[in-house]
Amino acid sequence: MRNTYNFAGGPSLLPTPVLEKIKQQLMEYENSGQSILEISHRSEAFEHILQTCEQKLRELLHIKETHEILFLHGGASLQFSMIPMNLLQKHKKAAVLHTGIWTQKAIEELRKFGDCEIIQTSDFSIPKHYDIPEDVDYVYLCENDTVYGTKFHELPQKENMVLVADVSSCILSEPMDIDRYGLLFAGAQKNMGIAGLCIVIIRKDLLAHIPSGLPSMLDYRVHAKHNSMYNTPPIFSIYVCSLMLTWLQETYGTLQKVKEENEKKAALLYAYLDQSTIFHSKVLVEDRSIINVVFHCESETMEEQVILAAKEQGYLNIKGHPLTKGIRVSMYNSLSYEAIEHLVAFFRKFEQQVLQQS
Amino acid sequence: MRNTYNFAGGPSLLPTPVLEKIKQQLMEYENSGQSILEISHRSEAFEHILQTCEQKLRELLHIKETHEILFLHGGASLQFSMIPMNLLQKHKKAAVLHTGIWTQKAIEELRKFGDCEIIQTSDFSIPKHYDIPEDVDYVYLCENDTVYGTKFHELPQKENMVLVADVSSCILSEPMDIDRYGLLFAGAQKNMGIAGLCIVIIRKDLLAHIPSGLPSMLDYRVHAKHNSMYNTPPIFSIYVCSLMLTWLQETYGTLQKVKEENEKKAALLYAYLDQSTIFHSKVLVEDRSIINVVFHCESETMEEQVILAAKEQGYLNIKGHPLTKGIRVSMYNSLSYEAIEHLVAFFRKFEQQVLQQS
Repeated sequence: MRNTYNFAGGPSLLPTPVLEKIKQQLMEYENSGQSILEISHRSEAFEHILQTCEQKLRELLHIKETHEILFLHGGASLQFSMIPMNLLQKHKKAAVLHTGIWTQKAIEELRKFGDCEIIQTSDFSIPKHYDIPEDVDYVYLCENDTVYGTKFHELPQKENMVLVADVSSCILSEPMDIDRYGLLFAGAQKNMGIAGLCIVIIRKDLLAHIPSGLPSMLDYRVHAKHNSMYNTPPIFSIYVCSLMLTWLQETYGTLQKVKEENEKKAALLYAYLDQSTIFHSKVLVEDRSIINVVFHCESETMEEQVILAAKEQGYLNIKGHPLTKGIRVSMYNSLSYEAIEHLVAFFRKFEQQVLQQS
Repeated sequence: MRNTYNFAGGPSLLPTPVLEKIKQQLMEYENSGQSILEISHRSEAFEHILQTCEQKLRELLHIKETHEILFLHGGASLQFSMIPMNLLQKHKKAAVLHTGIWTQKAIEELRKFGDCEIIQTSDFSIPKHYDIPEDVDYVYLCENDTVYGTKFHELPQKENMVLVADVSSCILSEPMDIDRYGLLFAGAQKNMGIAGLCIVIIRKDLLAHIPSGLPSMLDYRVHAKHNSMYNTPPIFSIYVCSLMLTWLQETYGTLQKVKEENEKKAALLYAYLDQSTIFHSKVLVEDRSIINVVFHCESETMEEQVILAAKEQGYLNIKGHPLTKGIRVSMYNSLSYEAIEHLVAFFRKFEQQVLQQS
């Protein structure tokens, strides 16, 4: 058993059984005479790993054959460019529901290739009453914002709209209706393992209209045609992803169960925060993320104190993002309910000490 | 001890001490309370790993401050696009010394952005007598070809020429004069660890003339400015690279020693092949690679037999590339001299059996 709890925003905690499995297969992968770090992407062993990833993603997220699943290099950030390069098709324009630095980065890259209509609201909240323009190729959003701790609990709706979503921090945290998306993508280093892998799920009919002449490595059609093996894929990151998906399925069975567990963790922490006299959440209640809980103290000094005291007791990585400052508790699938119980007990004790001193 | 020998063209063999170190740090990395697979790219631990990589590359390859070292996602294949996007500056044209599928891929991507003058010779050999055009932004080559088993033992020379080289399969196999290159790049999965990482070494003055408006993830300036941390880098691949560099330095000290060891391995194998009655190398003697030794039998049937017999005895991955067929023995730094001794003994025995049967 580890004697720390890791609340990092990502790269994040991995389940201990997943780490143990990796350790076990590190010197030799399934009687192959080779380490998992040495196997070829053209080997049967890796073919099976890639198939496992695809199959388990399809099972967990109920992904139909309407959508292709791609396993790509470059992290989610490369998607900020690949999406406009591939999906600015007819109108050369997209609408962005702008909620923070992740959509800001997407907007900056989008503008290198086309026009951008920005829909936004105040910080720490999610746009709600807006019209989606007709003359756009797609509507883009970041479904769960790790920095502000906000979440789209309702997706935009409009007939024939192509919805594109960055789901890096919420994929596999709850059931999703994949049919509603034209494209969704996620860096693997939160709920699907480690950095170096980005998973893109794209509606197949969109592939047909991708402009020609794109760099091959940035063309979704090329990756689809080569079954994500146009070049040597990030083998080990895909392997870790396969173990994460297997662990999730064996532990919870369905994403509904995963969601219930995540809601339980979030409810415990928010309930404490809402009655605390020293901590407060700036996020509109209806826009709260159940994954990244962002909150503040009355002073930055107190925030630094609590972060330091937490670290000393093994509650790691609760420092807020530099943009928002404050405190951030990230609760990805690998984090146990027990971890939040312990953390809340720690916060309570800290609060009592503060109140006694004042 | 492992009871197999792995002669894969890449992803390739890792030294056992490197695998053991990874295994040791898998559950907890240096008292951080976190696995090496969980640490943040913003942590001091990772900062140290990245610094180790840069420092050891500079020491081993004698890289001066004239050149920047970048640690990128996407594999070497993304460089086929990034190079023309960044380096087609004045002439919008490059010359390519064309030696196989790796330069073919580079040519295809280059042509999406500019003109290409191709200099080539017959298969299984390296271009020698040629003029380098004046009106090109750079001259491109693949220094060691893994498919044909050829190697540039002399680099092109011309004043003010910007030389760009794919050194994926030969980096760290021998000393290099980095001053001669404008840019060199290598996927990590041969001599520097595992897939998912590409190292780019670029002359700093070239950064100043990169066209504006490139996608951030494809702009060398952006990665240089952010010290390869513009987005979450492939943390684990960089960590494995740091261990590989440390192992190389501790084992051999200098690249001159590495070269001597690699030449010894290659000499043993070529000496056997040159007197064999059933195996023959098609590569011009003066163009032979000391890393990837490609050779053939009189029939494909015999090639299949020897590949199968080898596998049964634990000599893995000696099948040639689909393009050339035949047999390929790759001898990256991690492969011992002893492995080649055993393999040659196996080939000798196979040959005797063939001759007895005929």
